[in-house]
Amino acid sequence: MTEMTRIEPRSGTAFELNEGQVLRVYDPEGQQVSDLLAYAKDDVREVISNGRTFDYEETLRLTKGNTLWSNRSNPMLEIVEDTAGLHDFLLTPCSKATFRHFYPDKPVHRGCFGNLAEALGPYGIGEDDIPCAFNLFMNVPVDGETGRLSVETPRSAPGDHIALKARMDCVIGLTACSAYASNGGSFKPIDYRIE
Amino acid sequence: MTEMTRIEPRSGTAFELNEGQVLRVYDPEGQQVSDLLAYAKDDVREVISNGRTFDYEETLRLTKGNTLWSNRSNPMLEIVEDTAGLHDFLLTPCSKATFRHFYPDKPVHRGCFGNLAEALGPYGIGEDDIPCAFNLFMNVPVDGETGRLSVETPRSAPGDHIALKARMDCVIGLTACSAYASNGGSFKPIDYRIE
Repeated sequence: MTEMTRIEPRSGTAFELNEGQVLRVYDPEGQQVSDLLAYAKDDVREVISNGRTFDYEETLRLTKGNTLWSNRSNPMLEIVEDTAGLHDFLLTPCSKATFRHFYPDKPVHRGCFGNLAEALGPYGIGEDDIPCAFNLFMNVPVDGETGRLSVETPRSAPGDHIALKARMDCVIGLTACSAYASNGGSFKPIDYRIE
Repeated sequence: MTEMTRIEPRSGTAFELNEGQVLRVYDPEGQQVSDLLAYAKDDVREVISNGRTFDYEETLRLTKGNTLWSNRSNPMLEIVEDTAGLHDFLLTPCSKATFRHFYPDKPVHRGCFGNLAEALGPYGIGEDDIPCAFNLFMNVPVDGETGRLSVETPRSAPGDHIALKARMDCVIGLTACSAYASNGGSFKPIDYRIE
């Protein structure tokens, strides 16, 4: 088991997670979103896919027992524990463009998108290779009748965590989210360790 | 205005749509899904994105007045008319893998995924470049409480159509869908023309 590693507020990281290893991600202070991406280590053109996951899992609300699938229809990560129970797989990582759109009066930040691009660059992964992330602890209610969605303050409590078991050798990108709406207006760290 | 072009059942095509042109897609017999993809003609690494669209449009139910956005946060297509009013942007094109998963007793078909890959190949677009499609006329109800989704028979009537205006020069991929569930168990053609 590795030591607990801290992702500082509004930053991101990337690392390898081999088949069978478990990645455990903690929201240490509560109400903090973490964007997660996964790529096949052998060929980073294989990547986590919200659409393939919705196809096979037949739900938008992914939790313990669900698997996250790749664009090539292979299982990438299996959720083996989840004390939060509420995550989002609909939205893309916040970026300079989303900051300009949603927060025109606030300073532009490169966001999770920029943080992920920098962290994943050494693995040969560029900006255009960043799809929708699996947004841990993110609270995006959907109205089934109208389809309307909104980004609300996460419901995660301090210490809530999710554990994901790798079903293939992966490169993981992981952030402590930089957007105001997704964190209730504050920015906090994210902790993780590999087991 | 071009002549009406027919996409035969379980097949697909690709063509260019220039900025300002309108693509009108018809469901001539009703209850038939058509998967639509869009790429920037100048650089096909820029592609339609369900996540960016959900970000900016703040709804899963896209219809007249909504815009489909690219992975680079640029408007690609604007829905300027829509007699059907019900489409899906959650799911990926049906493929050999989805046929094996959902229809284990039926013959495997390359599906919209295979049809799109073949049609888009000459534009330098490969299988790994195919994201979630905007699935015209597809009926995928979502339970807002549980997140459960299902693929139901389309509600489109014969002659229903949607018109999309290009906000940039695009390469379009378009199919007459090959999956059983999305078409109520039958396969029908799709018609389109460019105005």
